[in-house]
Amino acid sequence: MASRTDYENFDLGDFTLSGGATLRNARLAYKIYGTLTANRDNAIVYPTWYSGRHWENEWLIGGGMALDPARYFIIVPNMLGNGLSSSPSNTPPPYNGPRFPDIRVQDNVRAQHKLVTERFGIERLVAVTGWSMGAGQTYQWAVSYPEMVPRILPFCGSARTSRHNIVFLEGVKGALTADAAWKDGWYDQQPWRGLRAAARVYAGWGFSQAFYWDQVYKEMGYSSLEDFLVGFWEGFFLDRRDPNNLLAMLWTWQNGNIGNTPGFDGDHIKALRSIKAKTIALPAEKDLYFPPEDEEYAVKHMNNAELRVIPGVWGHFAGGGANPVDTKFIDDVLKELLAS
Amino acid sequence: MASRTDYENFDLGDFTLSGGATLRNARLAYKIYGTLTANRDNAIVYPTWYSGRHWENEWLIGGGMALDPARYFIIVPNMLGNGLSSSPSNTPPPYNGPRFPDIRVQDNVRAQHKLVTERFGIERLVAVTGWSMGAGQTYQWAVSYPEMVPRILPFCGSARTSRHNIVFLEGVKGALTADAAWKDGWYDQQPWRGLRAAARVYAGWGFSQAFYWDQVYKEMGYSSLEDFLVGFWEGFFLDRRDPNNLLAMLWTWQNGNIGNTPGFDGDHIKALRSIKAKTIALPAEKDLYFPPEDEEYAVKHMNNAELRVIPGVWGHFAGGGANPVDTKFIDDVLKELLAS
Repeated sequence: MASRTDYENFDLGDFTLSGGATLRNARLAYKIYGTLTANRDNAIVYPTWYSGRHWENEWLIGGGMALDPARYFIIVPNMLGNGLSSSPSNTPPPYNGPRFPDIRVQDNVRAQHKLVTERFGIERLVAVTGWSMGAGQTYQWAVSYPEMVPRILPFCGSARTSRHNIVFLEGVKGALTADAAWKDGWYDQQPWRGLRAAARVYAGWGFSQAFYWDQVYKEMGYSSLEDFLVGFWEGFFLDRRDPNNLLAMLWTWQNGNIGNTPGFDGDHIKALRSIKAKTIALPAEKDLYFPPEDEEYAVKHMNNAELRVIPGVWGHFAGGGANPVDTKFIDDVLKELLAS
Repeated sequence: MASRTDYENFDLGDFTLSGGATLRNARLAYKIYGTLTANRDNAIVYPTWYSGRHWENEWLIGGGMALDPARYFIIVPNMLGNGLSSSPSNTPPPYNGPRFPDIRVQDNVRAQHKLVTERFGIERLVAVTGWSMGAGQTYQWAVSYPEMVPRILPFCGSARTSRHNIVFLEGVKGALTADAAWKDGWYDQQPWRGLRAAARVYAGWGFSQAFYWDQVYKEMGYSSLEDFLVGFWEGFFLDRRDPNNLLAMLWTWQNGNIGNTPGFDGDHIKALRSIKAKTIALPAEKDLYFPPEDEEYAVKHMNNAELRVIPGVWGHFAGGGANPVDTKFIDDVLKELLAS
């Protein structure tokens, strides 16, 4: 897909991160779908996921869908580090490349809150929703701004990154950084070998065992297993996904924990209990790194939450928009939540 | 662990592989536990697993256990490629290193059959059992020599390597070979970075999500998640596990399929149906690359097989001997099978 410029930038100014660093002249790239009502009461925030760009969220937006631009003002903020918002790849020296500071989910949501309140004057949202790391940001919105967020639908994600999930990501990082061409992040040319290796590591995790058993990739237009590994997975990682950007977002992911919100002293249970939003937690049945058990656990510690499970063999990518059946399932649940 | 020399070598002579190459002066390293009876009717074959050595099988052998050397003559043949039997690391030029020919599971079992029949004059075994790739060899024994094998207990393995399992291994291979120090296999020094990256990829697969959630690694003596990743996983891959050997065995694993036995034309169902041995297929509940569903499928196509599942959170490493509860479970099932 060609690079797209159909978005706007919100100037975050000198944005001090929770870790203490200041990202100077920081920016949040975002795209709007729909029109804000006069009394500003129809906004939904729908953050991006690991390496995703706003246009890769669009499959869940459309006429007749829950996220209908004719009715809602849908804001898709690009995650810091994704190459459009401030990222290792687009920040000028000296904070460029591997010197780009660590970003927490809290920082992302604080930046998004500035956008929502300062640019649009919105005081209360209709809902927040998102896939994967977008689900993590969704939870964070409910913890950071409980009075602003009446409804959340985090799908295929979690409020705190589990240890196993951290280990899965260690494998992705290990493969990418094993390539000497990576040069500790000071590469002139992309470390292609490492990127492709990371893609192959990811391939086993993104879809379930049953997805591969059933050769569902053939329904997606891939002619063989190897064609899927190269065509889908390597292609995915080569689609302008800069290694330092990937590593920055990976750090954000590994360190995801709503308990690190100021006032919660690292206690994610306390943070889960603080959530006021009506919540439908929506993991996928065979998701290998955000398994349903983890969300079952989260829901148990929340006051106004229920668990639904996306059935089927797509695993994590049930929430990626490529399977119409799963998309309809998510859309239906989102409609239900928005109607409540 | 210090290198051990407590084994013998069986001379395979010039051993022609199913792929057409000839491994000259090939050898099978093996160790015997117990004494063969005069009428040679108490032998059990217990092959090794991916990168395992005979001593790493010993946890399932002992007085009072199913594999009791006081009763049985237990033969542990080292898999070709494991560094003791003929391997990239110990084969002289020109077939050394990355020129070591592709080995199939069929070749391993044919070599083991030569050992069993030619050195020991055994015409019929009591049973074959093994973990992981050892389970694959166990199935292969039952297909290649149906009249010789009355009982098999393959645990945490499969008769044919599933597509998802192939993809998981692609990630391990990708990480290892992303290291430029690997030099397409012509390394002078070990590609440490790639080996450690491969270890980290493996870490997420070897144990289940729940194992990490429960921090079971602490019961194993590891003080933190990172300590487990370095101490257990990187240590595992650095324990004299030569990269070319790892890649040779990985090829064997990825290409595992009893259907490739001569006479079956690649039809693994036909091969499953041909098995005469009384079989207990024993996957582990949360094994991420040999999931119980796959063995359920295999058992359905066999005539004299039943499925049991090792319960608990250890995943694939339920069969690795490090958890006394799982070891007892396996041992009990093996006792039951041997008594039948």
